[in-house]
Amino acid sequence: MAVQNAFEQKKRAILNEIGSAQPDLSPKGTIDELCLPIIDLINTSADMVTTSSCSGRVSVFLEGTKSYNGEVKIGGKGQGGKWLYVTHNREKVLGWLDDLRSKNEFAFEAFSKQISSEQVTGSTRYILYKYEPFILHVKCRDFEIASKLYNVAMSCGFRESGIGSNNLVAIRINIKLDVPIGYLDENSDTLRLFVSSEYVGVLDTLSLSKFDENIRKMHVLYDKIDNELINSASNPNLRIDAATIETKEERRERKKKQGIERQRQIKSAQNTL
Amino acid sequence: MAVQNAFEQKKRAILNEIGSAQPDLSPKGTIDELCLPIIDLINTSADMVTTSSCSGRVSVFLEGTKSYNGEVKIGGKGQGGKWLYVTHNREKVLGWLDDLRSKNEFAFEAFSKQISSEQVTGSTRYILYKYEPFILHVKCRDFEIASKLYNVAMSCGFRESGIGSNNLVAIRINIKLDVPIGYLDENSDTLRLFVSSEYVGVLDTLSLSKFDENIRKMHVLYDKIDNELINSASNPNLRIDAATIETKEERRERKKKQGIERQRQIKSAQNTL
Repeated sequence: MAVQNAFEQKKRAILNEIGSAQPDLSPKGTIDELCLPIIDLINTSADMVTTSSCSGRVSVFLEGTKSYNGEVKIGGKGQGGKWLYVTHNREKVLGWLDDLRSKNEFAFEAFSKQISSEQVTGSTRYILYKYEPFILHVKCRDFEIASKLYNVAMSCGFRESGIGSNNLVAIRINIKLDVPIGYLDENSDTLRLFVSSEYVGVLDTLSLSKFDENIRKMHVLYDKIDNELINSASNPNLRIDAATIETKEERRERKKKQGIERQRQIKSAQNTL
Repeated sequence: MAVQNAFEQKKRAILNEIGSAQPDLSPKGTIDELCLPIIDLINTSADMVTTSSCSGRVSVFLEGTKSYNGEVKIGGKGQGGKWLYVTHNREKVLGWLDDLRSKNEFAFEAFSKQISSEQVTGSTRYILYKYEPFILHVKCRDFEIASKLYNVAMSCGFRESGIGSNNLVAIRINIKLDVPIGYLDENSDTLRLFVSSEYVGVLDTLSLSKFDENIRKMHVLYDKIDNELINSASNPNLRIDAATIETKEERRERKKKQGIERQRQIKSAQNTL
């Protein structure tokens, strides 16, 4: 058996985790499908391994409570924040507001034109609508590889990328929305929107175009990583790690196992309710 | 005369530029005042030099036109975008909407509840309200110094920091607002807001609390850079670059010169109108 260095051990461990039926540490528990091609591509290199990713998402978040022991903590999102809606799927963006209303978890006021200073204070729990783009973390064997990956990402427009500790490259782009759309009126447990439902429709439409732009950028990045880091003759130091390439059959088998495991978890969760 | 290496030459050139009366390459043309303490601190180190900075700002931007030659470019900000308002000064956030109205450059509709799909299309020029936090770029002598600075920044909550090419560290934090508040109706050259002026007031209030949080974070960063990179006995490799420390008198003299030069430029610009 060949002796593995620290990077190789780490890479095997991560790939075993990705390949297992266990949910990962993200709230969703699985890798976003749109990330799989670029993750698979990068992991064919013996010198890189992906450590976390998000393909892009729309989220609606109710901030947690900001006052404890009588003190108000300004600026933070607070304890006990709550996701009102999250989707990584472009097809599930439209209609989230109706879904939320029909849940009847909170009373709902569609549009509050009158916003008084009593309602909006330092301790107000805002409802935040966000579009967050693709992000990918890649651990590299050494700084030279990390620099190459960083330069490729920057040249594709991922201008907020950077190299961190231990040759971990964060690939980031700045196509975002970050909009406070309302707040929780704690007196009546009512979600009150600052904006009209027509405006929420505008945000959703913008999110859809950001999803499209995001996916276009992911394709550009995929191609450039493939050309310059994986198959490029000008980078002889980058070796293909044949053992990590999954065949179609292996992927299908793994996906099936994951599906069965997911079903099992859902049933088990339902049984404990 | 001591021989300077490439880093030292670059550092001298940058410090000469900072010290000169010439406006820099930013739209504003000068370093934001709130950045000066941390810039001065970092530049006392012989191993680091700041290359660009912004102390945080509120901006209102009208996107440029997105269609050329009949083709609509989705996702970009377009050619010929226009700043409707920008301020780095927390005291100048409130009241921008009234200022903009009183300029009479565009007709203004305060609040459009009805948003039709004819109005909002792929080529719509949106009005974007943004709060953007402090950002700082620091060129370091070598990767070891860059790593130390990166780790300090991350430990202070600047979680979007990263090391780029040539040991250039970007220090970034994610306290943002990114809100489409309206659009340009090109038929009537009218700026139409999707939101009420009360809602703009909420955004402004949030921006003020973000300014405060931002400055608090800058102080934390200042102290930690001072303790761990500048004065720390545990970093004997970091040497104080005595020649780059400005005395109070030198700074006053430089500021005076800059002020005179700025006045001259303003007058010269007025004369050419």
